[in-house]
Amino acid sequence: MLQVIPVRVSANIMPNDDLGNIVLKAIKQNRLEILNGDILVLAHKIVSKVEGRIVSLADVKPSPKAIRMSKEHGKDPRIMELILKESIQILRAKNGIVVTETRHGLVCANTGVDQSNVEGDAALLLPIDPDRSAARLQAAVKKKRGKEIAVVITDTFGRPFREGQVNVAIGVAGMSPIKSYVGSRDMYGRKLRVSEIAVADEIASAAELVMGKSKGVPTAIIRGYRFEKVASASAKSLQRTKEQDIFR
Amino acid sequence: MLQVIPVRVSANIMPNDDLGNIVLKAIKQNRLEILNGDILVLAHKIVSKVEGRIVSLADVKPSPKAIRMSKEHGKDPRIMELILKESIQILRAKNGIVVTETRHGLVCANTGVDQSNVEGDAALLLPIDPDRSAARLQAAVKKKRGKEIAVVITDTFGRPFREGQVNVAIGVAGMSPIKSYVGSRDMYGRKLRVSEIAVADEIASAAELVMGKSKGVPTAIIRGYRFEKVASASAKSLQRTKEQDIFR
Repeated sequence: MLQVIPVRVSANIMPNDDLGNIVLKAIKQNRLEILNGDILVLAHKIVSKVEGRIVSLADVKPSPKAIRMSKEHGKDPRIMELILKESIQILRAKNGIVVTETRHGLVCANTGVDQSNVEGDAALLLPIDPDRSAARLQAAVKKKRGKEIAVVITDTFGRPFREGQVNVAIGVAGMSPIKSYVGSRDMYGRKLRVSEIAVADEIASAAELVMGKSKGVPTAIIRGYRFEKVASASAKSLQRTKEQDIFR
Repeated sequence: MLQVIPVRVSANIMPNDDLGNIVLKAIKQNRLEILNGDILVLAHKIVSKVEGRIVSLADVKPSPKAIRMSKEHGKDPRIMELILKESIQILRAKNGIVVTETRHGLVCANTGVDQSNVEGDAALLLPIDPDRSAARLQAAVKKKRGKEIAVVITDTFGRPFREGQVNVAIGVAGMSPIKSYVGSRDMYGRKLRVSEIAVADEIASAAELVMGKSKGVPTAIIRGYRFEKVASASAKSLQRTKEQDIFR
């Protein structure tokens, strides 16, 4: 059996806060413990906040392109400037929706730039290197509690063909984000149609069910999932390259 | 806390078997009980099997188009015939990957036609009406156990932009497949960026983590998720129409 345990965080997160301390303290305040084999899942916002990936909109000077696009798509020109600055390519801009490829290679709306759950006239950007953020937190838990865990950092993405958004993994440490069935056989000895499952995305989605969007629960523990341990995991394994993608 | 509980099914599923009986018996054999508020998640294969959505390939006569496409994409011409017959439109056919829109309006590889976990020279098709299949199972549990549950029927889909496949909901009963945050505010009173979460897809993904692909676990119980009850739920709410989809 797998457990998905919400971890409420009551601290007001500030830039340069120690994420390991904040999360471990929150786990204790929730009368929980972190155990060997747990997966710690974090909404990227808490990570972006401690890493100071917050921009005061008063400091943003929109380019002519950002001003033009902001009018077309009904967005604040300063937000549009950040969307462009954080992206390497615009994939679609239509009906007020701007889908880009981020510097990390993620394909998502608004390059992940977000104003919700941010205080004042500011916007939150994605962490610079979510894999590194995840690895640091994993190391902090090892150092402070002696526990071997995996870490998944998430964001909430829309997707083609389907309505609604789902949580996906944008940073991973300690576990393979993909479970491979390549070469596996079914119970009749036939090769499986499904070859690779994006388990880190499924873990991100499972965690979302207890995290919600406005409840002060940016963290969850997934307990009882036997992940494949890997030393240098990366959520980049979940990113399909442009060349491999028949929809680009 | 949310629990994701695997339910092993040891019965060999045959067409016209009573799905309610099979699942309730399996739950008992797993020393489990179904409770009010549970979500019963089923891989679509067990549903397709009882509904006789199995085709002997010896009975399939491929059309000239199916023969031509089967050569191009390295597929069995009889499988290609089924892929075409079960689809209403081909979206992409490239590098051996054929993505279509199914009669249900689902966008997936091979119109969901699958040979794995099927005995003999046969292929399994998607259930004709997965929402109806889910509603029947929900009613059977109510009748036989007196419990109010929700049901989610799943398949494993690839997706653009991201590697690996994930479980999604193709049939739903008893719960809203989407949790809406439209009009909701964050802790600073700002409108949320995220407006609708595809919770039925997240539930399907969470269940996949315990179901796996070759372990004889086609069913899971999700316990502790407070879903929004709706009388006439449909997984069609998760299907973006062609007109609304900026990637079609």
